Amino acid sequence: MKVYLAGPEVFLPNARAILDEKIELTRAHGFVPVCPGDLEAPASLKGNARGLATSEVNEKLMMSADFIIANLTPFRGIAADVGTVYELGFMCGRACPAYAFTNTVVGHYERVKDYYGGHLRTDETGAVRGPDGLELETYDMIDNLMLDGGIENRKGIIVRHAALPEELYTDLTAFKGCLVAASRQLLS
Amino acid sequence: MKVYLAGPEVFLPNARAILDEKIELTRAHGFVPVCPGDLEAPASLKGNARGLATSEVNEKLMMSADFIIANLTPFRGIAADVGTVYELGFMCGRACPAYAFTNTVVGHYERVKDYYGGHLRTDETGAVRGPDGLELETYDMIDNLMLDGGIENRKGIIVRHAALPEELYTDLTAFKGCLVAASRQLLS
Repeated sequence: MKVYLAGPEVFLPNARAILDEKIELTRAHGFVPVCPGDLEAPASLKGNARGLATSEVNEKLMMSADFIIANLTPFRGIAADVGTVYELGFMCGRACPAYAFTNTVVGHYERVKDYYGGHLRTDETGAVRGPDGLELETYDMIDNLMLDGGIENRKGIIVRHAALPEELYTDLTAFKGCLVAASRQLLS
Repeated sequence: MKVYLAGPEVFLPNARAILDEKIELTRAHGFVPVCPGDLEAPASLKGNARGLATSEVNEKLMMSADFIIANLTPFRGIAADVGTVYELGFMCGRACPAYAFTNTVVGHYERVKDYYGGHLRTDETGAVRGPDGLELETYDMIDNLMLDGGIENRKGIIVRHAALPEELYTDLTAFKGCLVAASRQLLS
C-alpha cells in the first residue's frame, strides 16, 4: 500500500534529510512512501507556472496513493499548514484512510484562546467568542473539526506528542505512532 | 447544479444572515446552494461527539454538491481558515470544479514576509527563508500553491478584492465574482 506523506517539512532547510528519514521509517513499517516533490516540476518553469506545475505533480502523487499521513503541527501561527490540510481533504474526498500527527499537545481551543490573549466571552446562545466576535470551537481537538472529524470518522488515528520547540518539525516520534497504527489497521 | 459554499462566515455572530445572503445570491445566479451546517448535528450530542457529527454532516453535504466556492480570506493569522481549506481539498479530490475568493489583495508571499517582519534571506540554492529557516513560496498567489493550483489547474477562478477591514468576512463583492465566473463556465 502506498502512503502520501504530507507535511510542512518541505519548507525546512534540511527538508531532503527529514523526508528521507520519513521514507525509511515508512518502508520499515511495510508501506511504499510517496512525498510531495518526489517528482520535480520542470526547471525551466518560473514564477506562478512553476507553482501550478508543482501542485499538479503533488496531486498526481496523491492520486497514486492509497492513504495519507499528515503532519498537522501548527505552522506560522495557530493552525496546521494549509498546503497539508488541502492534501488531507483531497485524500478524504477520494475516500482514502487518513492518519495525522501533531508535535504539540496544546489543543486547538487552547491555541485560539491564547491568540485572543484569553479574552473570551460566552454569548446568549452559549457560543464562546473572541473580542472580534468570531466563535471558537470548544471541542478537545487538535484543529478545526473538519480535520479531526475527517480523520476520526474514517477510523484513522491522531497522534499528539510534546516535541521540544527546537524539534517541532523534525521529531518523528508521533509520525512513527501513525505508522504503527496504520500497519495494524491496514496490513492485517 | 449544486454548489457548496465554504468559508469562515460560520464563525460570525451574524452567520445566519450572511449565509442567507450568499444563498440568495447563489440562487439568483442559477445554482442550488448548500452550506456547512445546513443539517444540524443532533442537539443531544455534546463535546467531541458533536464536533465529529458536524464534520460528518458537512461531508455529506459536500458529497451532494457538484462544485465549491471557497472563501479563502486569511483567518486568525496569515492563512485561510483550515476548515475551509479541508473542504476545498475534499471537493478537488472528488474532481469537482473549484472557485475561490479572498477579501484582501495582499498576497501570500507578502503576508508571510510581514509575519517575519521583513527579515528574509536568500540561501545558496536561491530559496527565500525566514529567520526560522522555513522557506517561503515566492509566487504571486493568494495562499499555499496547493490551494491556488487546485483551483486554477481545474480552470476555476480566484477573485481578489480589497474589502474594508470591518467588512473582511461580510463583503460579498468577490463572492459574486465567483458566481458570475461559475455561471459563465458551468451553465452554458
